[in-house]
Amino acid sequence: MITPRTLKGFRDYLPQVMIPREQAMQTARTVFRRYGFAPIDTPALEYLEILTGKGSDETDRQLYRFTDHGGREVGLRFDLTVPLARFAAQYINQLGTPFKRYHLAPVWRGENTQAGRYREFVQCDFDCIGSESVVADIETLLIINDLMESLGFDGFKIHINNRQILTGLLESLGLVEQSVPILRSLDKLAKIGPEKTAAEMESAAGVTADQALKVLKLTECTGTPAEILEQLPAVIGDGPTATAGILRLQQIFEGADAAGVPASRLQLDVSIARGLDYYTGVIFETFLDDLPKIGSVCSGGRYDNLVSTYSKQSLPGVGASLGLDRLLAAMEQLNLLPEVKTPAPVFIPYFDKDSSSAYIKMATLLRASGIGVEFYPESRKLGAQLKYADSKGFRIALIAGGNELSSGVCQVKDLQNKTAEEVEYNGEDATALVAAIQTVLGTA
Amino acid sequence: MITPRTLKGFRDYLPQVMIPREQAMQTARTVFRRYGFAPIDTPALEYLEILTGKGSDETDRQLYRFTDHGGREVGLRFDLTVPLARFAAQYINQLGTPFKRYHLAPVWRGENTQAGRYREFVQCDFDCIGSESVVADIETLLIINDLMESLGFDGFKIHINNRQILTGLLESLGLVEQSVPILRSLDKLAKIGPEKTAAEMESAAGVTADQALKVLKLTECTGTPAEILEQLPAVIGDGPTATAGILRLQQIFEGADAAGVPASRLQLDVSIARGLDYYTGVIFETFLDDLPKIGSVCSGGRYDNLVSTYSKQSLPGVGASLGLDRLLAAMEQLNLLPEVKTPAPVFIPYFDKDSSSAYIKMATLLRASGIGVEFYPESRKLGAQLKYADSKGFRIALIAGGNELSSGVCQVKDLQNKTAEEVEYNGEDATALVAAIQTVLGTA
Repeated sequence: MITPRTLKGFRDYLPQVMIPREQAMQTARTVFRRYGFAPIDTPALEYLEILTGKGSDETDRQLYRFTDHGGREVGLRFDLTVPLARFAAQYINQLGTPFKRYHLAPVWRGENTQAGRYREFVQCDFDCIGSESVVADIETLLIINDLMESLGFDGFKIHINNRQILTGLLESLGLVEQSVPILRSLDKLAKIGPEKTAAEMESAAGVTADQALKVLKLTECTGTPAEILEQLPAVIGDGPTATAGILRLQQIFEGADAAGVPASRLQLDVSIARGLDYYTGVIFETFLDDLPKIGSVCSGGRYDNLVSTYSKQSLPGVGASLGLDRLLAAMEQLNLLPEVKTPAPVFIPYFDKDSSSAYIKMATLLRASGIGVEFYPESRKLGAQLKYADSKGFRIALIAGGNELSSGVCQVKDLQNKTAEEVEYNGEDATALVAAIQTVLGTA
Repeated sequence: MITPRTLKGFRDYLPQVMIPREQAMQTARTVFRRYGFAPIDTPALEYLEILTGKGSDETDRQLYRFTDHGGREVGLRFDLTVPLARFAAQYINQLGTPFKRYHLAPVWRGENTQAGRYREFVQCDFDCIGSESVVADIETLLIINDLMESLGFDGFKIHINNRQILTGLLESLGLVEQSVPILRSLDKLAKIGPEKTAAEMESAAGVTADQALKVLKLTECTGTPAEILEQLPAVIGDGPTATAGILRLQQIFEGADAAGVPASRLQLDVSIARGLDYYTGVIFETFLDDLPKIGSVCSGGRYDNLVSTYSKQSLPGVGASLGLDRLLAAMEQLNLLPEVKTPAPVFIPYFDKDSSSAYIKMATLLRASGIGVEFYPESRKLGAQLKYADSKGFRIALIAGGNELSSGVCQVKDLQNKTAEEVEYNGEDATALVAAIQTVLGTA
């Protein structure tokens, strides 16, 4: 006898968790498709040389790697960006640009599980490759907004920045070379306050006290996006990068406005430092009003060249990644998830032992009308069957014994509101039954 | 520079292939849910001891196995049945029975790729665990039929058998002990003919010439299911297993009839030997009328005890597995797949450089009506943009230059039929535009 168990850091998804998870994934796909993004898939296993050295030292360490049957060094993908880069380098001439793809798939990282992190999780990425146009930036923002809305969220803020703002500022101060240590110091602002941040910039990046103050001026730009955009030229100057950065942000907010994204959801946050290492243009982060501490649930931005390690071509892109599992955990905390263990709303107990064909026919007629139905396979006592129906979270039970079936009626029992009504059902025509069910379900 | 490439036996799915693949998976999920089956998911990686010795020697050899960071011996799952067994043993008391689950997920086998087989493929399984009722057998058959219909197939046959028929026959002949070699010989019937099959039974299974003839009598039962069921008692006798086996088949055909499955699609094939090793009751195989040679595209049956290696409980079950990739290859051969590289039907070229907000608004209004729209991100020449639209397979282009936009019209261009019409669109109300698009798409 072998003890059934899963590996540390890996999870089984039981129906109650998997039903909303699958629904959220389907919602994401529907949104992506609505914007003309196409699905792709890539292998879970790649040549090790494709995967190593592409993320951080940490992702290299966390790689699940081994030697396969053919003596090849292979690894399980740790994200969907490296496979996208490999994919784009391999097929871009055949695919053409702009190439808009989405990819929902599991990734694996041998992470420390103490922080509540898992070693297998689903990533949900979308990217538009091969265009530098601001339209692609705007559509990324619209998709983030649409994803959040479609998943049932109303109270959220999308923080927007543009890497060019900080680059423009550093250019005007002659500090481009020191951008990495400056960014690192800036990132601590919320934690350690402006004075210590300035001191650290001086010691770690070797800037003057005056320069540090000028960098920190950036974080003092506040207000509506329009107000901040007005304040910026005085802070970051009018060099070409600064000017282009401000113009692009203006265009992004204009585009969002044209698409009717509520202005209250958008926040221009020119001091976001996180992620600036990788991104070269616009940056997005998304926070839930009710759970800001869980961090960004959808992040992304514009990058310069996706495929540099695999191809001489230059392919710019913009995209984002939905933190599906983080978001589902949030939805659970906010009671946004239904507590059901079945995807079907209707339960037919096997009441009269000799009527199984009649029940099967009833189930068939309802399924043909698009209603999910479970027919209990054993003719046990009705009470036991209804207990099962309750435990699974069925919404409706259709109760018909031999008498009901022969007299042309069926009882429609609302298991949630504990009400019941008799509905006409002659064994051939389920019209009245379908209508009664749809009324209870609110889909009439 | 690293050459972008995939491992031998692994595939990338480009949009043209992934779009119908994703649609087929979603169709399967919709069908499963309609019958009250719930989704689950399990880790790709399992403890090696969970996986080994559960399939054949071949699957053991083909296992992708390695030692992980924590020194654990692990493996990538090679099917979804072993994980289901582990899962059921672990959670069945919490889940309750009947437990009806579906699972769509990739599996990995280090197979010889010369036979056109892949080392990573998706399995699409559904099972009802914990019930011995014939209702669960019938619903398995109904789901197979519904899956095939919902995927767009009309010409297919579901072959049905019951392991009890052969067991009953062997019981009546006193040959239960020799069932394995008898089955192996019987499996060669179509290839080598009845005489050589009988000879092999005599030499390999040690049966008499008379016994061999009696076994072969089984394969001579032909006709409609009802006709075969009538012939059977004379061939397999009236022992308890034989009688129960015949009764169960009768009930299954009655249930299928009650659900309106066309009788022409069902074939009682009492000589199916394949799979009899594993299954203990009903067996299903599904063949396409137009492509019988690709083999069964959906197979399954009833088994006695799923969890025997992980638990002392006894859990019978019945289910089947859809050969999704085989079926998609068949659909491609039968021209059942659309040739599109985009999931969105409508393309908006970026025609007038200064109207990007107007185009974004137009796209937003259409998307809100449930229409998939791609807005081209660069204001290039119209001809180049339409060439892109053609190459991707968009159905409709909405052409509006500055003049059109200001005079309140938009050209709806049917890219397939090469027709075009002018439709009213004032920049605020897309009702007429939505109607015109739905007419072209045939969704009005």
